[in-house]
Amino acid sequence: MSRLDFYRSLAIPGDRRILFMVLDGVGGLPHPATGLTELEAANTPALDALAKSGETGLTTPVLPGVTPGSGPAHIALFGYDPVEYQVGRGVLAALGVAADLRPGDVAARINFCTLDDEGNVTDRRAGRIGDEIGEPLARRLDAMADPEGVEIAVRHVKQYRACVVFRGDGLEGDVADTDSQQTGVPPLDLRARQAGSERMARVAAGFVERARAELGDQQAANGVLLRGFDGYSPLPSLEFLYRLDAAAVAAYPMYLGVARLAGMEAHGVADDPAALVGKVMEMGSKDFVFLHYKSTDSRGEDGDFDAKVAEIEKADGVLAQLAEQFDVVMVTGDHSTPSKMRAHSWHPVPLLIASDNCRVGGGSGFGELACAQGALGHVRSSEIMPLVLAHAGRFRKFGA
Amino acid sequence: MSRLDFYRSLAIPGDRRILFMVLDGVGGLPHPATGLTELEAANTPALDALAKSGETGLTTPVLPGVTPGSGPAHIALFGYDPVEYQVGRGVLAALGVAADLRPGDVAARINFCTLDDEGNVTDRRAGRIGDEIGEPLARRLDAMADPEGVEIAVRHVKQYRACVVFRGDGLEGDVADTDSQQTGVPPLDLRARQAGSERMARVAAGFVERARAELGDQQAANGVLLRGFDGYSPLPSLEFLYRLDAAAVAAYPMYLGVARLAGMEAHGVADDPAALVGKVMEMGSKDFVFLHYKSTDSRGEDGDFDAKVAEIEKADGVLAQLAEQFDVVMVTGDHSTPSKMRAHSWHPVPLLIASDNCRVGGGSGFGELACAQGALGHVRSSEIMPLVLAHAGRFRKFGA
Repeated sequence: MSRLDFYRSLAIPGDRRILFMVLDGVGGLPHPATGLTELEAANTPALDALAKSGETGLTTPVLPGVTPGSGPAHIALFGYDPVEYQVGRGVLAALGVAADLRPGDVAARINFCTLDDEGNVTDRRAGRIGDEIGEPLARRLDAMADPEGVEIAVRHVKQYRACVVFRGDGLEGDVADTDSQQTGVPPLDLRARQAGSERMARVAAGFVERARAELGDQQAANGVLLRGFDGYSPLPSLEFLYRLDAAAVAAYPMYLGVARLAGMEAHGVADDPAALVGKVMEMGSKDFVFLHYKSTDSRGEDGDFDAKVAEIEKADGVLAQLAEQFDVVMVTGDHSTPSKMRAHSWHPVPLLIASDNCRVGGGSGFGELACAQGALGHVRSSEIMPLVLAHAGRFRKFGA
Repeated sequence: MSRLDFYRSLAIPGDRRILFMVLDGVGGLPHPATGLTELEAANTPALDALAKSGETGLTTPVLPGVTPGSGPAHIALFGYDPVEYQVGRGVLAALGVAADLRPGDVAARINFCTLDDEGNVTDRRAGRIGDEIGEPLARRLDAMADPEGVEIAVRHVKQYRACVVFRGDGLEGDVADTDSQQTGVPPLDLRARQAGSERMARVAAGFVERARAELGDQQAANGVLLRGFDGYSPLPSLEFLYRLDAAAVAAYPMYLGVARLAGMEAHGVADDPAALVGKVMEMGSKDFVFLHYKSTDSRGEDGDFDAKVAEIEKADGVLAQLAEQFDVVMVTGDHSTPSKMRAHSWHPVPLLIASDNCRVGGGSGFGELACAQGALGHVRSSEIMPLVLAHAGRFRKFGA
């Protein structure tokens, strides 16, 4: 019996509400001057109070030493094995903008780009054009028809980014990126990496050629780069596995996408603490609310220690306004993003679970070192979901 | 190679003796007034001394978030994967009273009950009749003959509880309970949940009908409810896997049953510390003694914090009298039973292993928080057996 089948066999209904708050990239590394990480340096009364009344630990997102992207990191947080359930970035992007995706469809990400007269890429992001340019370009591509009758939908994502969904017989998603990550060279040819994906590569090549013709009159962007091809097969939903009525609240499409993949009702909001709080407050009928807080990761990627500290403090304020509404509160990150490294990292991530059936950690609050000695110990991110469900009384006893 | 096959390939004989003491449901949750769990509040000089000279940790019985029943929890402690080796309660009950069980037999639990003239259940436990009534009733049912020639043995367990073993061709154990857990309605019909179990359901229906006729003249109990059907297939024994000559000492049949399932020689005793100590002392020729201490769980299920503390202290006294007789001492629980929850729970369980080859934990004794920071770290219950065997020198080096 698979792990998920086993947990599913134990799932029962319940009415205790779960807040599942993800501070993107919250884990960090010590500042050389103080020896404190971003999280340890931040003033976080709400997190510290929950850490002291609840249980803390550290979570490894995928496997020791593995630095995850946002997709697999969230798939793990939602309880799936991220190595078994690999989902391409194209599918996540399409789900993020609520594109109509059916099993068997193939999705890819689009970058609008600029090409010179010889067809060499001059800017891979078309000068980071804004939504007001990108959105109508996506609509023009969406209106094009495929001569072989493949249904092709193009949806704008943000700025210079869009996505495309291909629907038709015999399409498989193992197709290489056309983005060589370089300028001064032409986009790469569409190339199937497996025999079954040859039709997909051909159809995509036709799409790229027609896009070039369609956008030929555009100054801002006259070409497209495709990457992250993947066929869509949905995950077993949280409703199917655990009978959860789950909602997601996030400012960025990518996180709404991965939430939809797990069957959550996804709500996009402005990237602003008040908007996040307000939307979560509207979710009173849901028994599971995934709340995604993005800027902790963004400031880590900027390499700005103090700005990341400030974002953690803002997230703490969000938590302070919401915790009382829930019976079980879980806070962690999808991965670490130490500002020292300006990138995602493999370091385990602080984790807290608070409910009325907790062992108190006696810890010193919510930080990397304190969590390393917490009562939860060291877990894998895919184990957090079952722990949270146990605290919510959503599993019956196994055996008598 | 399976995990058990691998360990078996390493097993060697030895003469160091192992005490494997299970304090049922010992793990707990903090008392709101003190912040201390039952175990932390208890005065346990023997446990604390072993924790300080040995290694401590926390063990997860099955998987994170999973609350186990006693059966799977003990199967895990004896080293088996409790999800792979699922054993029905009927088989455990039959083993518990040392019924003759052979591979292919099907066993079920019996509740004596009372039925009214219309056949509706009036008391699912027949007024909790005592052994002096239950035992002769079981003998009457045991004497009945099956018209199809299936061998049917009935054994009394305790009070209103008994068990039945069916032996014959084409019997499979996937049969639903007849106990609807309600009164005022008739028992449920015998129903096969899989095609292969149809004969078993028919044979059991005949048994129930004959039992009704046989007990028709009884005031105390005039019917039976059947539950926990399961086919018997023994586990690979501790002797087969590790060359252990193992004995079990327990006051309750269920624990003797699960010990027999692992091939142990099982010794039932009175539910009394002196009786437990005395019987373990008689086991001088055994190199592995599983000692089960029940009342810690019972007081937890009663929701009586102080009484659980008192039972832990009694168990500590038992350990104090026995530890010197063994080279390796392991103490843990099968699961947690916080008196706050009045039920089994998923919380990891304190664990200690003491031998002359231990890292000392430097801990503050045997309690949930101290163990969370112990040298053993966090393990799964099915990993305890190999650790204990290693301390006893029962595994050769793997590879050169």
